[in-house]
Amino acid sequence: MSIDVLQAKIRKLKTPIMVGLDPVAELIPPALLEASFQEKGCDLNGLAHAYLRFCTDLLDALKGVVPAVKVQSACFEALGHAGVAAMEEVLAYAAKLKYYVLLETMRTDVGHIAAVSAQSLFGGVQVGDRSFLPYPCDGIVLNGYLGSDGIKPYLPWLQGENPKNLFVVVKSSNRSSAEVQDLISGDRIIHTAMADLTLRWSTDLFGKCGYGEVGAVVGGLAPRAIQNLRKRYDTLFFLVPGYGAQGGVAKHASYAFDRFGHGAIVSASRSVIGAWKQEEYAGLNHQAAAVAAVEKMKRQLETYVTVL
Amino acid sequence: MSIDVLQAKIRKLKTPIMVGLDPVAELIPPALLEASFQEKGCDLNGLAHAYLRFCTDLLDALKGVVPAVKVQSACFEALGHAGVAAMEEVLAYAAKLKYYVLLETMRTDVGHIAAVSAQSLFGGVQVGDRSFLPYPCDGIVLNGYLGSDGIKPYLPWLQGENPKNLFVVVKSSNRSSAEVQDLISGDRIIHTAMADLTLRWSTDLFGKCGYGEVGAVVGGLAPRAIQNLRKRYDTLFFLVPGYGAQGGVAKHASYAFDRFGHGAIVSASRSVIGAWKQEEYAGLNHQAAAVAAVEKMKRQLETYVTVL
Repeated sequence: MSIDVLQAKIRKLKTPIMVGLDPVAELIPPALLEASFQEKGCDLNGLAHAYLRFCTDLLDALKGVVPAVKVQSACFEALGHAGVAAMEEVLAYAAKLKYYVLLETMRTDVGHIAAVSAQSLFGGVQVGDRSFLPYPCDGIVLNGYLGSDGIKPYLPWLQGENPKNLFVVVKSSNRSSAEVQDLISGDRIIHTAMADLTLRWSTDLFGKCGYGEVGAVVGGLAPRAIQNLRKRYDTLFFLVPGYGAQGGVAKHASYAFDRFGHGAIVSASRSVIGAWKQEEYAGLNHQAAAVAAVEKMKRQLETYVTVL
Repeated sequence: MSIDVLQAKIRKLKTPIMVGLDPVAELIPPALLEASFQEKGCDLNGLAHAYLRFCTDLLDALKGVVPAVKVQSACFEALGHAGVAAMEEVLAYAAKLKYYVLLETMRTDVGHIAAVSAQSLFGGVQVGDRSFLPYPCDGIVLNGYLGSDGIKPYLPWLQGENPKNLFVVVKSSNRSSAEVQDLISGDRIIHTAMADLTLRWSTDLFGKCGYGEVGAVVGGLAPRAIQNLRKRYDTLFFLVPGYGAQGGVAKHASYAFDRFGHGAIVSASRSVIGAWKQEEYAGLNHQAAAVAAVEKMKRQLETYVTVL
């Protein structure tokens, strides 16, 4: 099961950290950017090539340091087809380096459109007698607000050979997430209604580690929500974003873990990939700074969480 | 204002119909598919080229017949970068033919990632001293469940020169939409909480037609919800999907309009673009069948709605 693969990779490195690859021009070292423009042109192709080089550099540096990466599709899609081509290469490179690779598509479709996406992301697109998989990944992040019709098309691929998994946004990491997600309905908060659905979608799809193949995204800025959700849903694997740049802290993130330090992974993006711009890491290049930022985050988490 | 442009185009043709371009291989005539494979290869490039030709054929045929088209990004993105390149061409072609062009991105991001998408979709990506707009469109469809942080980054572009607009999913057209969207919270249904937010996001952004620049997607399979929402939100422009293939009917869709036949547009995808496969249109090619299917839909709607 895919969730077992993720949990095993975390246990091997004793590091429940996922690095988010969310490239934007401001986070790329000027020399790297300039070289890409020289090589491919000062346009979307050049910028996409810079994204590719920046991300593969980081993947090289973080190999054996973190078990998992999250690729933010919005950043690549923002550059049009050149960006998407770069994203395909980044995903393939991350898979080659044996990371657990999560693709943050953040799509919300239903019915036959969700089926089209599921086929492309997990099953492969059939053309003639060949099958093409443009976005190799181990799992994706989805928004389940539209209901089961948006999730069910993905479920067949959560088992069998080469299984995938899903993370559904239960409680997002932004300040205004309360506007809808924290409304009360009967004896439930809306985001727990989403957690209930997430658990239901996992039915019969549990890994040996005890967690379901459909995990939940639970924002690091909502410590109370993390605590309540962990208590109530002891079989949902949690992805906790918002660490670092967004203000999430180790203590709050630690609420997501069980007493073995399992069942959760904490993601950080800008604070790691843009570490080279921080005074703290002055003199280090983007690769060394990213590793140093992860090591620091690791020490912070270890104060509260020990992965057994 | 962009919503005025949409309303004016609808009034000009007296047809509140938007055709959804959701290409999938099964809906493309075999001869067209074969020709594309011959020209570009029997792979994702060939299939993407078939999508492009199929969509531009339909755009040619429907010019002057419908005022607006909706491009489903999931279908194109499913083919990887080749699909995205085809989508860029389809969007540009639709804009050239003067359609109102809605891009159904169905993304849900927040904060700086939403800002990245907004910049790309509406503002343009700055590289050196040039700006690139990979996805030319008049508006996009978003999921607002994550709260204002996911919508606000788009708002600056809803005014000024070349303004855009947004459609936020309030009540989706799928059967399981009730699982979260119809839960009761206090005196509100969750989807009305989303409608309240949608209205708030429109503040100070109203067109001369009286409708806000941030519209609402209200599924055609929920007639009661359409009626209630129209009564309660007389300034929200409604996009009603689910007509035709998904089972929505003219009478139910008509509840979305005001007494002048304004304030709403009904979208149909498969029932129009795949009309050539229906027995009813046997002998017609995909272009003629699509026009015939739209004319039929137009007559059905005219029984209940007259656009003044």
